[in-house]
This record gives sequence, C-alpha cells and structure tokens, in this order.
Amino acid sequence: MQVQIVQNILSANEQIAQENRRLFDARGLLVLNVMASPGAGKTSFIERTIETLRARLCIGVIEGDIASSIDADRVARLNIPAVQINTGGACHLDANMIRGALPKLPLGETDLLLIENVGNLVCPTDFALGEHLKVLIASTPEGNDKPYKYPGIFSAVDVLVLNKVDLLPLLDFDLDNFRRGVEALNPEVAFFPVSCKTGEGIQSWAEWLLAKR
Amino acid sequence: MQVQIVQNILSANEQIAQENRRLFDARGLLVLNVMASPGAGKTSFIERTIETLRARLCIGVIEGDIASSIDADRVARLNIPAVQINTGGACHLDANMIRGALPKLPLGETDLLLIENVGNLVCPTDFALGEHLKVLIASTPEGNDKPYKYPGIFSAVDVLVLNKVDLLPLLDFDLDNFRRGVEALNPEVAFFPVSCKTGEGIQSWAEWLLAKR
Repeated sequence: MQVQIVQNILSANEQIAQENRRLFDARGLLVLNVMASPGAGKTSFIERTIETLRARLCIGVIEGDIASSIDADRVARLNIPAVQINTGGACHLDANMIRGALPKLPLGETDLLLIENVGNLVCPTDFALGEHLKVLIASTPEGNDKPYKYPGIFSAVDVLVLNKVDLLPLLDFDLDNFRRGVEALNPEVAFFPVSCKTGEGIQSWAEWLLAKR
Repeated sequence: MQVQIVQNILSANEQIAQENRRLFDARGLLVLNVMASPGAGKTSFIERTIETLRARLCIGVIEGDIASSIDADRVARLNIPAVQINTGGACHLDANMIRGALPKLPLGETDLLLIENVGNLVCPTDFALGEHLKVLIASTPEGNDKPYKYPGIFSAVDVLVLNKVDLLPLLDFDLDNFRRGVEALNPEVAFFPVSCKTGEGIQSWAEWLLAKR
C-alpha cells in the first residue's frame, strides 16, 4: 500500500484566494488590492482612478475597514457599486471576507474591481485576496524612511504610489533616500508619484493600468 | 477532594506585562507606550519630549520597529540611552520583548521610559507592555475620520496627541468632526494638539506629564 504524500498544503486563506482568483479570471475581471497606512489616501486614490477610467471601464469597489461605512459611502456617491466590509477589529482583509462580498457586486458587468484594505502597513501583506496586483499607497507626510522600516510590504507590491506630492515643498521628505530604499527592496515595482488632491500623476497611473489590462 | 477553580487566567502577555509593571513601580519609573500609524511622528514626539524634559528627568527609550535602527539612532544622537527592538515582521511590541530590552537600560537612573511601538493603529492596542499611560499620536494629514475608522485604539488610550497642526491651513482637516469622534469614544482622554516641527503645544504636554508623575 502506497503512502500518500500531500505536498503544498495551502493555508485556508491561500486556498480561498486561489478560488477567488479563478473566479476573477473566468470573468475577465482585473482586481487590485490597495494597501496603505491609515490616512495615506487609499479612498482618494480610488476616487481619482474611478473618475479617470469610468468612461472606459466598469468599476466596482470593496471597502475594508474595522468600523464605519465612511469609505463605501464616498464611493457610492460616485454611483459606483460599493460594498463595505467591517472587519470588527481585524487588522486586515482576508480571502474569505472577499468571497462573502462578491455576490453583492454586479460582477458580470465589472471590468475592474478595486479592493481597499484596512489601513495597516504590516498585516495585510500576509493575506492574499485573489488579486492580480498589489498596490501600496505611501504618502509624503509619513516620511522617506518607510521602506527601511516596513520592508515586507514594500517588497511585496507590484505598484507603489507616492501620494500627497503637493505637500513636498513643505516637508523634509528626501525623495532620493525613499527611492533608494524602494529600489533595494523591489527594483521592478511600478512607481507613480501623485497628488490625489490636485490630480497630478493620476493620468500616467490610469494609462499604465489600462495597458496592464 | 476539592476541585480547584482557577479564575482570571491571564494570557502569557498579560502576565508578563504585570511583571514589567511591578518592576516599573518598584523603581518609581513612569512608562509610556507611544502608538501611532506609520509616519505620524512618534519619534519626533519622543525627541521633543526629551528636549523639553531632560533637564528635570532622566529619560530612557525603547524603539520598536519591524526592521532598521533608524529611530534608536535618532534618539541616541541626543545622548539618551536607547534600545532598538526589531520585531522581525511582527506588527506590535509585546510584554516579553520589553522584558528582554529592560536589562539594556540603566533603569536605576531612569525616571521616565518612553516606548515607541511599531507603526500600526490596530494590533498594538491588544498587547499591554506594563506601561502606565497609553499615548496615541494622530496626525493631521491622516484625516479627521480616523476615530470613526479605528475606534479600538482611540477608545483605549489615556493621551491623544494630534501632531502636524502646522499643516492644518493646507489640509481639509475638520477638527470639530475629529474631536466629536474622539469624545464619543473616549471623553476622558487628555488631548494635546502639537507640531513636533515647530514645537507648538509641546510645553503643555510636558507640564501635564510632569504633573502626572
């Protein structure tokens, strides 16, 4: 009798993430997992992306927060289908939360799904949701040392957005030091300096994303 | 034979936190657990506190980060004893990490110990270190909605510092909305609006802390 060896046993989260991914792929849906510190501008970035791409793509949004529906309300005001997940204390979204939210969105008519994670530079990194692209929003008031202090997330992402560049003249933010830190960890990352307040840089991001699709 | 019922079984972390606390109390040491999002200004706040109080108190610092010794290096440049804890990925400090760091500080000559937690608005809330006061640094660029989105930490703290008030004229930060959110969660919290850049508000904080001691 042969002993069966089971290899690559996946964590429950990884298994559900792969199921989510298969569902996204079957429907031709591009899915982004948008991560950042609290207040870096994830929702503003999603709003700007919607505004810039809504004429060309059907967009849906899943908002993750510990509490409140402030962010989903902001997106819904743009007449975009939005689901709010309240994690009730949990510090990150997981694949099962996303699976539970999907039936509430019109996936058949959606080209691009933007998932906003809980504001946290650490824990979301370890939980795949089934996304195609991991996007990190850093922001200039946080300081240029963040790649050195949070290497896990800076290493893991496909896209790095540096938001609030309109504040650069007022801050002691060393952009060269920031970029050196990023390049050491993740030389392939697509980098977009933007201001969600003024709109600067959003067009390049939107064009890159369209080309990715 | 009587069945023994063990009540109030403490978590390992809570038990070590209580041991730390007894050690702090026996030595007459006041200990602060400083928490915030990444980049809110924890280290700058610690530097300003040192600068303002070093003539009156002997101060020590424990810096917590996932990686790097950037923050402990900053404090050490002020000629203050500083220990850097690298959590190696963990999203918060715990009581056992603090216990391990204490022998590296001259506790016999220390009046005030400032512990800077990992930048995270969620996870550190659940891990007591043995501290006397939990201090949360919010910052204006993060936006006024943070109390509504991260109620756990805003409810748990003794002191709330709102940093970067020098940027207020440039931001859409609704201070009334922020304060209403805070008051609903934590009406007793001591609130200090400050700018660690200009020094505004630091004196009131320092006087309050001295009186607390």
